[in-house]
Amino acid sequence: MSEGHRITVIAGGVGAAKFLRGLLRVYPNHLVTAVVNVADDFRLHGLAISPDLDTVTYTLSELVNPDTGWGRVNESWGVKDELERLGGQTWFNLGDLDLALHLYRTQRLTEGATLTEVTVELCEKLGIEAHLLPASNQQIRTQLKVENQGWVDFQDYFVAQQHNVAIEDFRFEGIETASPGPKVISSLEKSAAIVIAPSNPFVSVKPVLEISGVADVLRERRNNVVAISPIVGGAALKGPASRMLEELGFERNSVGIASLYRDFAETLVIDQKDSELALRVQSEGMRPFVTDTIMDTPDRAAALAQAVLAEISLSEEEQQ
Amino acid sequence: MSEGHRITVIAGGVGAAKFLRGLLRVYPNHLVTAVVNVADDFRLHGLAISPDLDTVTYTLSELVNPDTGWGRVNESWGVKDELERLGGQTWFNLGDLDLALHLYRTQRLTEGATLTEVTVELCEKLGIEAHLLPASNQQIRTQLKVENQGWVDFQDYFVAQQHNVAIEDFRFEGIETASPGPKVISSLEKSAAIVIAPSNPFVSVKPVLEISGVADVLRERRNNVVAISPIVGGAALKGPASRMLEELGFERNSVGIASLYRDFAETLVIDQKDSELALRVQSEGMRPFVTDTIMDTPDRAAALAQAVLAEISLSEEEQQ
Repeated sequence: MSEGHRITVIAGGVGAAKFLRGLLRVYPNHLVTAVVNVADDFRLHGLAISPDLDTVTYTLSELVNPDTGWGRVNESWGVKDELERLGGQTWFNLGDLDLALHLYRTQRLTEGATLTEVTVELCEKLGIEAHLLPASNQQIRTQLKVENQGWVDFQDYFVAQQHNVAIEDFRFEGIETASPGPKVISSLEKSAAIVIAPSNPFVSVKPVLEISGVADVLRERRNNVVAISPIVGGAALKGPASRMLEELGFERNSVGIASLYRDFAETLVIDQKDSELALRVQSEGMRPFVTDTIMDTPDRAAALAQAVLAEISLSEEEQQ
Repeated sequence: MSEGHRITVIAGGVGAAKFLRGLLRVYPNHLVTAVVNVADDFRLHGLAISPDLDTVTYTLSELVNPDTGWGRVNESWGVKDELERLGGQTWFNLGDLDLALHLYRTQRLTEGATLTEVTVELCEKLGIEAHLLPASNQQIRTQLKVENQGWVDFQDYFVAQQHNVAIEDFRFEGIETASPGPKVISSLEKSAAIVIAPSNPFVSVKPVLEISGVADVLRERRNNVVAISPIVGGAALKGPASRMLEELGFERNSVGIASLYRDFAETLVIDQKDSELALRVQSEGMRPFVTDTIMDTPDRAAALAQAVLAEISLSEEEQQ
């Protein structure tokens, strides 16, 4: 198949992982690339942890915990329980199976492998045929300015404080000097279509877009870019996206999302529950595409992927 | 009690840990200090691992695996099994409970704590009243020159190759610039007696002695220093001490040990099985003290400790 039929998805964590799993059910896997946010990555206990890459990896290899959407199914907690006994930090839930992957990644990085290379190795080992590309191999760190607290690291805000606090601003430490990871730009340039997954626009998508060169490709290829709104009926299905919209001065719905994405994507996929917002999305400068965006089962995620493919005139049948 | 009744033990791994456990059964624990070798320490998967400190810690807190003498009793292997599946490095057996301690230590070091401070925290948490002092807070790394292989790291030789290879030489990278850890020198100076535990003289004791200032104190206080031979009947009870004696040109028995320790210790404790070597130990310049040195049960370890205390005229009764 020609390169022209490739699809590249700009991905954050749980929402992106569910969409990708759906897409891989209805499209040739080797033609799918995900450029995954790394600005949530951090070190804990000396280990290199990449939450979004992990969530996508576990979801696509069917190892994910279906109840949470992140972490491993059939997880055990031997290390965490003992760490708690020792008085260690246990706010970031590290299961035994999950830890094994962090040990693997950290050791390989110590040996000089890049995050891109480690990700390829893990995909190969776990049978993932799609291509997962870390957005960058350099350190980018999201920080949130939290009301009455000042700047805090992303995982402190997201996990330790369970995003139950108001934010005033956000920034990506290191992004000015970070280069896109290998193949990121070429993948975006050569794909028939680019999909912005239903992820948090501020802390999942923006730290990919702001890496040198990425936003430029999207602006140039705007006609081939479709974004999926992570907001349904005024609320994010998971995470703090909707309250962040409001706290940062945007409308708390898909119109707010449209105002963020209009320079980078022609089409915004919005949920059928929000069909009355279609005209307002259009007024913001994006073409609305209304469908069912709730991915509470893998089948519904596949249906969403199929609908998006049809909208952008790509389907498995056409490839054959 | 006065400082004069303190005992400081220079310690390696399993043999030292067994002796210390015996000593703590017959002597006031708060008067016992162990200066523990750190030249076996290494990083794996990004984690700071201190094998000798861990073995001593687990043994003194009764958490040690009694079958091996190292690692944790009732250990589980969830992480290791998964790491194996991912194709990671599993030659160094990291159990789940053991890993928790490495995670704790690594995180605290990352936060700026010293190894000394972390060790104090762990002892407190695990109910160890004796004082464990890392020999140094700086990096010292034992390397072995292995026949036909050149220089290899200690854990490669000891664990990965199970010390089944001949060595030609050894060295301690970093020892020239390493300072003794806090309280190490003062503990040696102020103790009524110093015991060199039945540990490997080359790779456990020597990398403590060679830290700046340590050997000087022992030479000055030679009359108060007693060493326990790790060799019984020509063989080390554990580890490669006896074959290393031969490979490095020493007699493969307690006479060889005496030739290594005579400048630092007045007395050498040798096993009753080796009583016929007593005169030759004396000819090497050390006072032989013959007793049962085999510590196959905690009771026998306590009996050895009691015999050593009697020999150096210290006993619990005298303290009261």
